[in-house]
Amino acid sequence: MFDRQLSKKATENLELLRETKPLIHNITNFVVMNTTANALLACGASPVMAHAQEEVEEMVSFAGALVLNIGTLTPYWIESMLKAGRRANELNIPIILDPVGSGATRLRTDAAKRLIDKLSIRVVRGNASEVLSLAREGPKTKGVDSIHTVDDAADAALILSKALDTTLAITGAVDLVTDGTEVHRVSNGHELMGYVTGTGCTATVIIGAFLAVDNNPLTATSTALAYYGLAGEKAAFNTQTPGSFQVGLLDALYSIDGKQLTAGAKIQRR
Amino acid sequence: MFDRQLSKKATENLELLRETKPLIHNITNFVVMNTTANALLACGASPVMAHAQEEVEEMVSFAGALVLNIGTLTPYWIESMLKAGRRANELNIPIILDPVGSGATRLRTDAAKRLIDKLSIRVVRGNASEVLSLAREGPKTKGVDSIHTVDDAADAALILSKALDTTLAITGAVDLVTDGTEVHRVSNGHELMGYVTGTGCTATVIIGAFLAVDNNPLTATSTALAYYGLAGEKAAFNTQTPGSFQVGLLDALYSIDGKQLTAGAKIQRR
Amino acid sequence: MFDRQLSKKATENLELLRETKPLIHNITNFVVMNTTANALLACGASPVMAHAQEEVEEMVSFAGALVLNIGTLTPYWIESMLKAGRRANELNIPIILDPVGSGATRLRTDAAKRLIDKLSIRVVRGNASEVLSLAREGPKTKGVDSIHTVDDAADAALILSKALDTTLAITGAVDLVTDGTEVHRVSNGHELMGYVTGTGCTATVIIGAFLAVDNNPLTATSTALAYYGLAGEKAAFNTQTPGSFQVGLLDALYSIDGKQLTAGAKIQRR
Repeated sequence: MFDRQLSKKATENLELLRETKPLIHNITNFVVMNTTANALLACGASPVMAHAQEEVEEMVSFAGALVLNIGTLTPYWIESMLKAGRRANELNIPIILDPVGSGATRLRTDAAKRLIDKLSIRVVRGNASEVLSLAREGPKTKGVDSIHTVDDAADAALILSKALDTTLAITGAVDLVTDGTEVHRVSNGHELMGYVTGTGCTATVIIGAFLAVDNNPLTATSTALAYYGLAGEKAAFNTQTPGSFQVGLLDALYSIDGKQLTAGAKIQRR
Repeated sequence: MFDRQLSKKATENLELLRETKPLIHNITNFVVMNTTANALLACGASPVMAHAQEEVEEMVSFAGALVLNIGTLTPYWIESMLKAGRRANELNIPIILDPVGSGATRLRTDAAKRLIDKLSIRVVRGNASEVLSLAREGPKTKGVDSIHTVDDAADAALILSKALDTTLAITGAVDLVTDGTEVHRVSNGHELMGYVTGTGCTATVIIGAFLAVDNNPLTATSTALAYYGLAGEKAAFNTQTPGSFQVGLLDALYSIDGKQLTAGAKIQRR
Repeated sequence: MFDRQLSKKATENLELLRETKPLIHNITNFVVMNTTANALLACGASPVMAHAQEEVEEMVSFAGALVLNIGTLTPYWIESMLKAGRRANELNIPIILDPVGSGATRLRTDAAKRLIDKLSIRVVRGNASEVLSLAREGPKTKGVDSIHTVDDAADAALILSKALDTTLAITGAVDLVTDGTEVHRVSNGHELMGYVTGTGCTATVIIGAFLAVDNNPLTATSTALAYYGLAGEKAAFNTQTPGSFQVGLLDALYSIDGKQLTAGAKIQRR
């Protein structure tokens, strides 16, 4: 039922990550800085948070990937993201964008769109409303307004991915990943993730870490989401409450080994 | 001994909160953003943190309550709070203020007073020295300077509540809540709360969540404090150390049910 | 093998800290604000985070020590650190500097050097590359470039400590502390600390707390590191994964008593 090749790819990526411990540069929101730094450490990567315009270009040059996250945004941070992003593009360092709250306020929607316009972004990860808010207005996005089934969502994501020229990850009960040509679905995860702040943002940084070791944004993203979702499943096996679950999630990110990941990854090609 | 009607009201509020999952908009300090977001999720609400002057008016318009917290304050943030607060007032969205550190520095004391002057604040929650620092100078506050018993404190709080035209919650070993007419005392809680950062700020956001479902600031506040204090008691039942206690507190906020709250709430009318 | 006198001094400092509960003023990075506040509370101190230029001079005047940490730095924060630091110097309040990321970007290296130049800093704590990046260029620092053994590191640290006129703590598998005359080595600690964000920054704040009760920067630093490292050992005794370890570390900071510290401290004079 699940794709064996992608399960093995997940393990390959995780092991490479733990071997090479890439630096992941984050320009991210205040709420999740601690959480995502800990998640990156637990999965084997090396996090740095830096947003000063005086240093982001220097910092990103050491990084295996750049994570841009627009929660708790102010205009200063958008400029920092653009500076770091341009340098990352010059050095061919992959960028992942988390458009937190895009669609909710104009500041965030405009910022997300501007980052996508000005930079070459390898992956965008968000929930359905955040990702769909990125659609440019016009006839092409008509389909976006009327999504009723998972297949509708996949079709809309394919169109939007092509239009924005980036891989999209729409996470939810089932995660949908598309590079505009292919679609992967990941069904790992647990509903308790919705009761811990920053679990979406954490998904994003783990994709960032996988992008540092896998040039293919589609497989980097779907394998990262399978690994992260499996950690959620493992954590939920031992607890039913969010405080303990959050602790268990970090424990599981650290302790899941290649064998467990190959066995537990639930990735399907469309 | 404890007021049965208020115990039932606590359960009613908690259940309504979990049903309606109101968005709580926080303009708050860096130390507790993660903690208070998790507490809001655990109790059933939906947190958002946003402070940019470009978006706070838009963001607060979706909210069931606005939380203003002046820890790690700079002048930019005061302006953001005023902007969000004015819009909240226009839309009749309740505001709760946490005057962290008011009385310690002029910046914080002045900011707290200015917010109270310029906005219609439904509830102010702080410890005794923070709340009493809000008194305007003059003969009326004379009593405030010489508080020796809980009854003295209740009298001073009543006078100050009337003077500031807001409900006051002075939290400590026993919490005192007054709307200027009536006084509620809440004796739930545990001393380990003093060994975890942000437990006061968390009390504030939980009151914020209860304000989103209960129009009466007095009962919203005292029932929220009973629920939160009961979570502390439950957490302390299983551990005696602050790391585990903090985890257990989130677990308890999530797992306490209506029956437990009705049985465990310790609210008294003066 | 380990110095008994210093083991007893560690206990003396810890007990004095818990008795006097000094306020520790932190101007620190966003990633660790919550973590370090909790660590300070757990060890018995009283944390405050404040960075506004309008209030840092007032706030630091109440403090037993000032912690400056340059992670997530912007120029505004450097000015705040200088303002707070000048006032601390006037009042003879000890300052500890954590030069997070010094050596990685020019902004951070320059900021760390500037703080050391303009202020009288009692202790600097960092990892080897951060601390060694503080060396002024010139013949004196020649030895710094070719460190192969722990003895080389101790020699380089001695020279640098004299040159910078501050006590240096270089933390790692074995921590090296020198005031330019004597060298202490601390071998408490656990490798899981490397998998939790902010464990270095937490070492810094705990030294800050010990500086508030011990005028000798050498013994304040080595005893603080022994206590903190012992907490790591105790936490690792019960768990092998970073989420639970982080919780256990806070628990251990709180629960280690004087007897355990005297028995467990591993400090050697060179």
